[in-house]
Amino acid sequence: MKKINVGIVGFGTIGAGVVQALKSRRALLKEKCGVDIAVSMICDKDIKAKRPVRVSKNTLTRSIGKVLYDPSIDIVVELVGGIHPAKDIVIEALRSGKHVVTANKALLSEYGYDIFSLAGELGLGVGFEASVGGGVPIIRALKEGFVADKIEVIYGIINGTSNFILSKMAEEGMGFDEALKIAQSKGYAERDPKLDVGGGDSCHKLAILALLGFGAAIKPSEIYTEGITGIEACDVTYARELGYSIKLLAIAKRADKGVELRVHPTLIPEAHLLSSVKGVYNAIFVDGDLVGPNLFYGQGAGAKPTSSAVVSDIVTLAKHVASEGKLPKDFPLGAKDARIKKMDDIMTRYYVRFSTIDKPGVLARISGILGKNNISISSVTQKASRAASAVPIIMMTHEARERDMAKALKEIGKLSITKKKPVRIRVES
Amino acid sequence: MKKINVGIVGFGTIGAGVVQALKSRRALLKEKCGVDIAVSMICDKDIKAKRPVRVSKNTLTRSIGKVLYDPSIDIVVELVGGIHPAKDIVIEALRSGKHVVTANKALLSEYGYDIFSLAGELGLGVGFEASVGGGVPIIRALKEGFVADKIEVIYGIINGTSNFILSKMAEEGMGFDEALKIAQSKGYAERDPKLDVGGGDSCHKLAILALLGFGAAIKPSEIYTEGITGIEACDVTYARELGYSIKLLAIAKRADKGVELRVHPTLIPEAHLLSSVKGVYNAIFVDGDLVGPNLFYGQGAGAKPTSSAVVSDIVTLAKHVASEGKLPKDFPLGAKDARIKKMDDIMTRYYVRFSTIDKPGVLARISGILGKNNISISSVTQKASRAASAVPIIMMTHEARERDMAKALKEIGKLSITKKKPVRIRVES
Repeated sequence: MKKINVGIVGFGTIGAGVVQALKSRRALLKEKCGVDIAVSMICDKDIKAKRPVRVSKNTLTRSIGKVLYDPSIDIVVELVGGIHPAKDIVIEALRSGKHVVTANKALLSEYGYDIFSLAGELGLGVGFEASVGGGVPIIRALKEGFVADKIEVIYGIINGTSNFILSKMAEEGMGFDEALKIAQSKGYAERDPKLDVGGGDSCHKLAILALLGFGAAIKPSEIYTEGITGIEACDVTYARELGYSIKLLAIAKRADKGVELRVHPTLIPEAHLLSSVKGVYNAIFVDGDLVGPNLFYGQGAGAKPTSSAVVSDIVTLAKHVASEGKLPKDFPLGAKDARIKKMDDIMTRYYVRFSTIDKPGVLARISGILGKNNISISSVTQKASRAASAVPIIMMTHEARERDMAKALKEIGKLSITKKKPVRIRVES
Repeated sequence: MKKINVGIVGFGTIGAGVVQALKSRRALLKEKCGVDIAVSMICDKDIKAKRPVRVSKNTLTRSIGKVLYDPSIDIVVELVGGIHPAKDIVIEALRSGKHVVTANKALLSEYGYDIFSLAGELGLGVGFEASVGGGVPIIRALKEGFVADKIEVIYGIINGTSNFILSKMAEEGMGFDEALKIAQSKGYAERDPKLDVGGGDSCHKLAILALLGFGAAIKPSEIYTEGITGIEACDVTYARELGYSIKLLAIAKRADKGVELRVHPTLIPEAHLLSSVKGVYNAIFVDGDLVGPNLFYGQGAGAKPTSSAVVSDIVTLAKHVASEGKLPKDFPLGAKDARIKKMDDIMTRYYVRFSTIDKPGVLARISGILGKNNISISSVTQKASRAASAVPIIMMTHEARERDMAKALKEIGKLSITKKKPVRIRVES
């Protein structure tokens, strides 16, 4: 039986999980796939710290060269995270003729095009199942399962931290800050939670999904990204009264020319399956022209689910090495000049909350400005005032253009009847 | 670019869908995967009937040999269905050195072991993504995505017809017969619905899932199978009052020695994601020791979703042919002597409905017999009598042994206070 040697770079939580999984399942994987996968070298800056898995001393090195330039190593697994030095490690591994497995969404969303191009030229594979949705096999589904489909739309709840916070807010009526503190105490949020709650992490993953689903190589900086820090407890409550839940959605849609990509808090109908995705769970909804609506659900993070995905990639590449064949094309690289629809031009429905003084004629003023900007209202609810001075007015609109909505809200925000900046949350059905 | 020739056997609804998809996406697939896939021959008994896709006359044949023995054909797609002559076609295709794609769950559940063994010996591949869950890429997930996982449990809602009927019963309070008629009028149920509503179709699919998830080659005839024909509208209502929905579940669990497999109507908590799976949709819930709980959801039948899955298999095999490598092992064949846990020995919770006369002491008699048989009750509800003569008593039990429950129900059924045979539905949480 062919023995495949794997070099691991980065021996943190995920790295230890992957080594643990490969070691404990070596016999199982032999039986399942006919390949013998050995961890032959592990590189980390710190080779002294205690890890939850035991490895022999001569497997550990601080020298990256011992992984990148060891001719016996077939597959390099990059688990360093971040862009530097991960990018150099991945590129140098490919240049040294090694297949690569990585869970690094920041790297792939920014430099995926270059990395996949290089791998393609060299006839090498790059596995990245763990980069989106943890153990959920969504990358495989998009690359292979739905290979014949024209994907129409992808909706992702792909940041567990944000979903945990929004779920807490919905279930227990608490505010963002309080929910964030609980997430931090449970280890679901970093001390600096910006990448998660600010939407950046979802944005990285969306860029990867857009490449697979729409063949579009779009940089994260081009994707409109709004996090959940502005969501207030009252909006969660009002949304529910209207039959909606609020989720941080990563949205990709086929557009006339190119693709529409955005990350923001979104009202979705309570009855939609995505509304049932609670806590740290992730889910990706994909609609293809043949396969129809599909949903994938599972744990989006954590050492074990991530290891499951990383090992699945290692196995796929190990089987390829053992087959001694040429590596078939996996997916198109994506047009580097793919067009992303301008955020100003997108059409969507909106939930808007105005805080106004309690005086006759207020509603007429607001709806007049909306109407003038081509925004038609589908429902209005005037809430009993909580702070004696301001009355919340909740509106749901029909489909309107983002640019028009921004203009209207700016104008309404300046009115003397308006007590606070209007809050708007987009709606998907 | 390598051209791969595909021969289609069976030009019905699915066959036409597959041909349509391959023809309309030929350029797309070239770009995505670097292979050119051509439909070079289509075999059917009837080559005169009008189909929704146009093919040239010399592509059509009534002679199976023109597919099986044409040396230019790389992949044979069997879409005949049923066991005969599908089995001979698949085996003869493999013997002629051709890879095979099939959607035939009846065939694979009965003869999978033999077919996969033969393919393995010959170094050929058998794709069967469409055999379970239509376009939902569950086969791929189990073979590749979760390759490192020790699967603990699989729950499948894998018969759309039954799920449609149960959904109708739950949403509109109608009885089984009425809901079946609607399913038939919508084309969701056959005129003879036995294979679907009797659980046989789910049983076939469960056997395939058990092979992939647990490496167990178990014949459908060994799997306890109970359909939904005995479900009454009142049970759906009572279940809901207790916080449960009723679904036809295919269940596979890792057991001490071997595997526990069964198909039957099941009470599942309303809050579980599987309860949100309505209408003709399918869903498969998989729990692995690394990846944790995962759910896959989509359309389980229909020409388009099935074509999506069949074409994905064709593409995978076409890429393999183009790679000119050896075919790597896909999954273990499964132990032919795998042990299935005896149904009598399974432990589960139960919902039981008794119809009794309205007299003091009835509850004491019933609970006495249950207690004597080691069954402890977790809740009892006595409903107001509808038919003046019989009073429904609804009990939920703690975990009990199937053998004990059968014995207790038999005894209670014989009591003079019992007006009708007790109804029992198993419960999963």
